[in-house]
Amino acid sequence: MRNLKITLAYDGSGFHGWQVQPERPTIQGTLAAAIERLTGSQVLPQGSGRTDAGVHALAQVASCQIDAGIPTENLARALNHVLPPAIRVLSVEEAAPEFHARRSAHAKTYRYRIFRGEICSPFLARYVCHYPYPLDEKAMCDAAAVVTGEHDFTSFAAVDPERGRDDEEASNVRTIYSSEWKRTEYEETQHAASLQRAYEFVYTVRGSGFLHHMVRNLVGTFLLVGKGTLDRAAIKRILDAHDRSAAGPTAPACGLYLVSVEY
Amino acid sequence: MRNLKITLAYDGSGFHGWQVQPERPTIQGTLAAAIERLTGSQVLPQGSGRTDAGVHALAQVASCQIDAGIPTENLARALNHVLPPAIRVLSVEEAAPEFHARRSAHAKTYRYRIFRGEICSPFLARYVCHYPYPLDEKAMCDAAAVVTGEHDFTSFAAVDPERGRDDEEASNVRTIYSSEWKRTEYEETQHAASLQRAYEFVYTVRGSGFLHHMVRNLVGTFLLVGKGTLDRAAIKRILDAHDRSAAGPTAPACGLYLVSVEY
Repeated sequence: MRNLKITLAYDGSGFHGWQVQPERPTIQGTLAAAIERLTGSQVLPQGSGRTDAGVHALAQVASCQIDAGIPTENLARALNHVLPPAIRVLSVEEAAPEFHARRSAHAKTYRYRIFRGEICSPFLARYVCHYPYPLDEKAMCDAAAVVTGEHDFTSFAAVDPERGRDDEEASNVRTIYSSEWKRTEYEETQHAASLQRAYEFVYTVRGSGFLHHMVRNLVGTFLLVGKGTLDRAAIKRILDAHDRSAAGPTAPACGLYLVSVEY
Repeated sequence: MRNLKITLAYDGSGFHGWQVQPERPTIQGTLAAAIERLTGSQVLPQGSGRTDAGVHALAQVASCQIDAGIPTENLARALNHVLPPAIRVLSVEEAAPEFHARRSAHAKTYRYRIFRGEICSPFLARYVCHYPYPLDEKAMCDAAAVVTGEHDFTSFAAVDPERGRDDEEASNVRTIYSSEWKRTEYEETQHAASLQRAYEFVYTVRGSGFLHHMVRNLVGTFLLVGKGTLDRAAIKRILDAHDRSAAGPTAPACGLYLVSVEY
């Protein structure tokens, strides 16, 4: 039996999230069907974590065990041949027998894209959260810095019925290595003239692990800071409250990207 | 009666082209329905030209006459409120009574995007033509230059059942002001690490007007030059043949953008 590490990018807008569901297109289910079609084996690839419906990935990682002898490079090419264009296998590698995409991960990076401009480009509508109203971006940068370090993130975690299966996941303490907002300007060539003055305000967060909805709840809370509803000091109080209702709303899924997983 | 100039961007992938059709979503039909919903008037906005199914626009222009008194800025905002995110009104302006989006146009610019890299980003699949095989890009640049100037483009025109209604359109002679291929590199932040070495090879053409399928037929022919099937001198022979069968195939719609219309 070979243990494989599969790295994949996907446009999550047409899928009901990562996790396999009956009768609904999911990333995991679509990948499993492609592997079965090519190797004849029924396997369920294990992701580094579940992404919600509409959430994208630049480099999600999945592990699965197969006994087919097909070389990794050929398998990657063949998978891209049978998968829809919205899911691309970036690489397939042989992994050590103990490698598990979720349990072996020790850091992950997510990004959240907010489109700043009155009119959102039709080519970005599925790939960003459109927020054209005033935001105190400096306050949001300050607020983002508050969550770095080790904290109990209960206030930013959705109640997740599937958690608690593994002991190591029973705690809501996570370490955030970096947490920052930055502007990304557009190049002239990509969009219409009237969209050129628009830019994106992008949140990038790297941490030891993330609870369910945690990045979207952080972004929804930082947006309240940007609107002036909360001040920078509120983030510390929200962390200390250990209470989901203390934080802001969950930001829309379409702006979120799983950028990378570290092992 | 007011005459309006409407500038709009659209993602053509979910539409059966510009021109209204019964029972099928089109840009013209969707825009007409939005105008009717807001003003109560049944009008058919006239585009600067029809775009085919899957073809995009960064700044298509349409004209239409309405009698509602709503200010242009409010109309633009209201249209974006009722239109799907795949169609965005960039501006609405009052135009002179004689302004007509197609007849008043004196130049247009189109762009064609070819994704060069083994794996096409899932976020670009609808927005580029993916061609990962070797191309002699220098030969394509040379070939593109050959079509500048005034030529009869019959060899690059699809047989179009709707043409010939206006006398001015009976000729297949058009003037190309510029015609060139250029590389566009990707920024690190936009795509997965393994896609970073990819780039786009982009054709931009500006001319007095374009026949049906003309840009896609030019691109399909330049691709034959890039593959070595045709040499640079072939372009001149194809122009002189005045015969559609002399040129290459029609390139896929999804890579094509109407960039701008000049009046």
